Amino acid sequence: MRLLLINPNTTVSMTEKAAKAARAVAGVGTEIIAVTSQTGPASIEGYYDGALAVPGMLRELKLRQAAGYDAVIICCFDDTGLDAARMFCDVPVVGLCEAAVSMAGFIAQRFSVVTTLERSRILIDNLVQRYGMGARAKVRASDIPVLELENSSSGAIGKLRATIERALAEDGAEAIVLGCAGMTDLARDLQVLYGVPVVDGVAAAVKQAEALVSLGLGTSKRSSYAAPLPKPFLGAMQEFAPVSSIEVSGA
Amino acid sequence: MRLLLINPNTTVSMTEKAAKAARAVAGVGTEIIAVTSQTGPASIEGYYDGALAVPGMLRELKLRQAAGYDAVIICCFDDTGLDAARMFCDVPVVGLCEAAVSMAGFIAQRFSVVTTLERSRILIDNLVQRYGMGARAKVRASDIPVLELENSSSGAIGKLRATIERALAEDGAEAIVLGCAGMTDLARDLQVLYGVPVVDGVAAAVKQAEALVSLGLGTSKRSSYAAPLPKPFLGAMQEFAPVSSIEVSGA
Amino acid sequence: MRLLLINPNTTVSMTEKAAKAARAVAGVGTEIIAVTSQTGPASIEGYYDGALAVPGMLRELKLRQAAGYDAVIICCFDDTGLDAARMFCDVPVVGLCEAAVSMAGFIAQRFSVVTTLERSRILIDNLVQRYGMGARAKVRASDIPVLELENSSSGAIGKLRATIERALAEDGAEAIVLGCAGMTDLARDLQVLYGVPVVDGVAAAVKQAEALVSLGLGTSKRSSYAAPLPKPFLGAMQEFAPVSSIEVSGA
Amino acid sequence: MRLLLINPNTTVSMTEKAAKAARAVAGVGTEIIAVTSQTGPASIEGYYDGALAVPGMLRELKLRQAAGYDAVIICCFDDTGLDAARMFCDVPVVGLCEAAVSMAGFIAQRFSVVTTLERSRILIDNLVQRYGMGARAKVRASDIPVLELENSSSGAIGKLRATIERALAEDGAEAIVLGCAGMTDLARDLQVLYGVPVVDGVAAAVKQAEALVSLGLGTSKRSSYAAPLPKPFLGAMQEFAPVSSIEVSGA
Amino acid sequence: MRLLLINPNTTVSMTEKAAKAARAVAGVGTEIIAVTSQTGPASIEGYYDGALAVPGMLRELKLRQAAGYDAVIICCFDDTGLDAARMFCDVPVVGLCEAAVSMAGFIAQRFSVVTTLERSRILIDNLVQRYGMGARAKVRASDIPVLELENSSSGAIGKLRATIERALAEDGAEAIVLGCAGMTDLARDLQVLYGVPVVDGVAAAVKQAEALVSLGLGTSKRSSYAAPLPKPFLGAMQEFAPVSSIEVSGA
Amino acid sequence: MRLLLINPNTTVSMTEKAAKAARAVAGVGTEIIAVTSQTGPASIEGYYDGALAVPGMLRELKLRQAAGYDAVIICCFDDTGLDAARMFCDVPVVGLCEAAVSMAGFIAQRFSVVTTLERSRILIDNLVQRYGMGARAKVRASDIPVLELENSSSGAIGKLRATIERALAEDGAEAIVLGCAGMTDLARDLQVLYGVPVVDGVAAAVKQAEALVSLGLGTSKRSSYAAPLPKPFLGAMQEFAPVSSIEVSGA
Repeated sequence: MRLLLINPNTTVSMTEKAAKAARAVAGVGTEIIAVTSQTGPASIEGYYDGALAVPGMLRELKLRQAAGYDAVIICCFDDTGLDAARMFCDVPVVGLCEAAVSMAGFIAQRFSVVTTLERSRILIDNLVQRYGMGARAKVRASDIPVLELENSSSGAIGKLRATIERALAEDGAEAIVLGCAGMTDLARDLQVLYGVPVVDGVAAAVKQAEALVSLGLGTSKRSSYAAPLPKPFLGAMQEFAPVSSIEVSGA
Repeated sequence: MRLLLINPNTTVSMTEKAAKAARAVAGVGTEIIAVTSQTGPASIEGYYDGALAVPGMLRELKLRQAAGYDAVIICCFDDTGLDAARMFCDVPVVGLCEAAVSMAGFIAQRFSVVTTLERSRILIDNLVQRYGMGARAKVRASDIPVLELENSSSGAIGKLRATIERALAEDGAEAIVLGCAGMTDLARDLQVLYGVPVVDGVAAAVKQAEALVSLGLGTSKRSSYAAPLPKPFLGAMQEFAPVSSIEVSGA
Repeated sequence: MRLLLINPNTTVSMTEKAAKAARAVAGVGTEIIAVTSQTGPASIEGYYDGALAVPGMLRELKLRQAAGYDAVIICCFDDTGLDAARMFCDVPVVGLCEAAVSMAGFIAQRFSVVTTLERSRILIDNLVQRYGMGARAKVRASDIPVLELENSSSGAIGKLRATIERALAEDGAEAIVLGCAGMTDLARDLQVLYGVPVVDGVAAAVKQAEALVSLGLGTSKRSSYAAPLPKPFLGAMQEFAPVSSIEVSGA
Repeated sequence: MRLLLINPNTTVSMTEKAAKAARAVAGVGTEIIAVTSQTGPASIEGYYDGALAVPGMLRELKLRQAAGYDAVIICCFDDTGLDAARMFCDVPVVGLCEAAVSMAGFIAQRFSVVTTLERSRILIDNLVQRYGMGARAKVRASDIPVLELENSSSGAIGKLRATIERALAEDGAEAIVLGCAGMTDLARDLQVLYGVPVVDGVAAAVKQAEALVSLGLGTSKRSSYAAPLPKPFLGAMQEFAPVSSIEVSGA
Repeated sequence: MRLLLINPNTTVSMTEKAAKAARAVAGVGTEIIAVTSQTGPASIEGYYDGALAVPGMLRELKLRQAAGYDAVIICCFDDTGLDAARMFCDVPVVGLCEAAVSMAGFIAQRFSVVTTLERSRILIDNLVQRYGMGARAKVRASDIPVLELENSSSGAIGKLRATIERALAEDGAEAIVLGCAGMTDLARDLQVLYGVPVVDGVAAAVKQAEALVSLGLGTSKRSSYAAPLPKPFLGAMQEFAPVSSIEVSGA
Repeated sequence: MRLLLINPNTTVSMTEKAAKAARAVAGVGTEIIAVTSQTGPASIEGYYDGALAVPGMLRELKLRQAAGYDAVIICCFDDTGLDAARMFCDVPVVGLCEAAVSMAGFIAQRFSVVTTLERSRILIDNLVQRYGMGARAKVRASDIPVLELENSSSGAIGKLRATIERALAEDGAEAIVLGCAGMTDLARDLQVLYGVPVVDGVAAAVKQAEALVSLGLGTSKRSSYAAPLPKPFLGAMQEFAPVSSIEVSGA
């Protein structure tokens, strides 16, 4: 089984950290193909960065088709471009937020998602509502710029711990979801430290992708995720024009 | 990894069918320990049957502790006794409905759950709402008594197909979830027949249980799923009294 | 009119306290038949205790059929086994939580439910959401083990008052609902003390049961509460097998 | 116990029919004081009629204070002026819709409300949502002008039956709520005819009012239903000016 | 374009302040016809005042028909009598709360509404939920009686600022909505002071009314806002009886 | 006032039709600057097309900054890239769907949105839910490819009418919202034909943009729409890198 893990931002160190985390939990026979977007922002902090990361992410989906992949993981907790990728693919496409909050739901009735900046908090809260967890999960920001997570001396971990401690004390959280791909290496230690389940989106997405593939479940091509219709694409986006709806299938 | 698959009804043929389905999708190194409740109803059709199936299911959880298990699957689409089992265990406990609708959410925006009798329809609709999928999923009954699914000449499959066809035509369903453990053997064929993803709860639960175990995620023991408090249990239920909160841990 | 008040836990002093409260508010001509479950936990603190209390509660329903009853009150604020009892009976079955939050809705737009332990808080919050009061009611725990309410020197009342005071100060509560059957004797004094309506579940359930009976309204036998279907029940649960659907009627 | 039943429309025959229904279900010792508004529309069909019925209804509340009453029933299924009356009174005030859907919730998980004209359907649907029953109840109009219910040869009953039959066939309704005060005399026969519980708002409101009074529960005077503040009222409305907040108390 | 701005309370200074605010934002060619209700409370603080303000407001709608108007603004943040007015008119009718929260939604994802007294807070919270903004907006009271806003030395502005500051600090508010018509003159200064958008309901309603009129959009006369049906109105309300459904049209 | 109307697809005839519609409703002194994206799909049918249209849309926002604009209209009913544009701008940014459903809410309690293809139906339904209109609006597809709306002999209008007629007959719709920018020229005729308000998104967005600008309300820069943070953008997206947060302001 080949899982295409795409980092939709252009920071290679984040891809490497996520790939390491993904490989650490991948099942026997699962190959993680980790790729970094070649075009777009160095980190995704809010809707603007996110929107400009999508074409680079879709390009990787397209470029990797020849080699083939059985599922896709979009390695950003904002689930950047998730719906667009699902239209492009017929294999499953998994986002970190959807995977993490789904898994948290099996082990806790109420939980808190701890993310980076205030500007991402509402974005993730909207996702959590869309995924049906609005009455069960609270989202908190830690005031950590994403790239500070790449720098162990940035003080980011202290801020993250303080936010988790507030979630446990004030929200009645039974579990913690780490709300940024860049926090993937911290989950195990935090789980030991606080004695509650700590869910990491990268790991969660790997397991959800494996689960879907092993059950033969792909993205439904009926209605909202039907393959893109053939039509002209002008200018720099020309490369994305589907010639026919057959061509857009996954591996 | 040892997964304890408990059929909370007392019909051994259903356990065997589910165990077969579970083993067919289990990962390398996953052992399925399939057990049938020794006390309670032969099938679970509504709340009364369900409530009376829980002690038998919890007894299996207790009896199997010595031998050990890494996660539990409650093999009924009503998620019978799920919350009680999560209090008893610190390993993950997975229900078929929660697992199936979670997985359907990754591959379809709108889907229909097709279950057996009208009396189970609202029960499952309430579960779907609790799991946050109320705005995305419609539940339909097929007018099939559960045990007719054990009898290939019962006409059950014809009724099931008719119901799926209505869901596709009238609900805008992008995927189908089979809403009874006894339908587990039909998923693949129906998926081929209708060309949309068909999610089976048994298979979904196996993969969710494997995912949780492999990530080291257990049931949160903070707040709503905290271990049962030691206290007297009278009469026939005496066997279930927790002597101390330490004793109730899983394998 | 004969109301069967079943305490689903096995602590007789709680039954007696509840029976006294029930008789104090019962109408002319209403007889309260108070029974204590003979099997199960001494108190219900969370889902595990609750699930194991249901068979004992259902047994009382069955045993008392010959003598007859016009409605049933399940005397626990967790509404233990409510749906199962409604399938068994065609007379009305009333739970304390549903009765209390319904009545609070007539006299206040926003209110707080004050319960015992943190482990019961989310359970009751889920009930409140199911009963449609999620946007109007907040649930708070007082850190009181249920049986401490049976002991006047336990300090339980002090904790309860402190929690009510926080609800009034922080939640904008216009009324208070007491979220445990064991608090039934405290409602009047607290109402006087705080000058807001204080709703007790036992009293509320008696009045709702009387109301339903006097209007000739029974549990609907169409769809989700249809009588249990005849089928084999194995082992210790054999006594609960419905022989035919006629037999399951109430008095 | 004295219950003030106010018909907020000015049609005396509707008051008499409702009073008869109320007295038929009232408990021993309950006196029904039935009054008809002296000013406003002859029937309440939509928001305009409703708004213009409120002052006449409030005047009755005020005029009857000297004689005293223990609770108020607003005898219209639109719950006309319910919130205003609750501010005026410290005794309980009960509306037909809130009472009926609350009682239906104890005996059925899903039900349909059958009302008169299309223009009242959304109004009632909004009430049902506010009372937390939006996910459980469907509202249907029968195309019956309210006053046709006063005329036995109008064909109204045929239309009502047809609507109930559609609710049973298409909505999965487990119970029926009659959505107009003028239907109060039909409930028992329809319940026998269709074999499902049929809830009448007049009867439901009487029992809820009795329940609240007998438990010593009045309208909360904290926050949203606090007594009107003393202030000038000009023109024709001068009579409604509260001189002081003490004066506005109920009987 | 002629906009009829009706102050449903009887305080002329509030009408004048609102008219000034309305004229300050009205487009070229928009005439603001500001009228004060001649009957009812001097301010609207809660449901009782509101209900008794409606007939006076509807009378102005009727009296001004001969002169004609193209849209109506009900100049109270409680949206007093909004639905009744929409039945009466076929021109658009706009309330301050609906206009303000709609406009806030275009410029902020989360915002807080700051109103006067606690007794109005839940009333407005219910409106906000009805308008679909319940998950996006929080309502706060400032403990300011409405008429204190007419008196610059009352300390009202200090209380208002303190409430806004709490909303910014604790709610994560991205914008502020002023929840009383009497605050209309404060919006611009507060926007400068706090550096976030501050939405005033009077101004918002003028622009929404202009927008609807210029697009030829009137109140739908199908279903819930259909014109009042001809019927007798007794007593003091006789003046409001629609003779025929044609007569009730707006200008 | 200068409104920048950006067609995020690359079909100039659609821009021209929308610009014509916009100018027809624009107020005195409003200049419509209509621009067509230079890069991306010829029409937006689903998430894939939408995501690939965003960079072209954002480029127009950036290119037009020097000349200045007071508000932005994104001329697609999918509200393509709306959140990203709001981060980029401090002037208001208005989408067609949000504008149209907001305006429909003032004139109807229940309405239907009639869009093009099935694949856009759920996308728009999700928007409608996010905008708080999920309980009030139903979305229907007409099976019309977007570009068929550019061709008067395509049969598109017949399909659209048939869908509107079903919405009126089956949904109880009180108003119709046209769910595609390409339908903008049809609104007036359909309103006359069906006698219910018909809301066009292009016209609605123009009026909402004018309203916001004239009130001095811009996009909140606090929290979720704060200006993009300066950071490197690699590859083809380099042009979008904000050098500093000051530079990203609108005109």
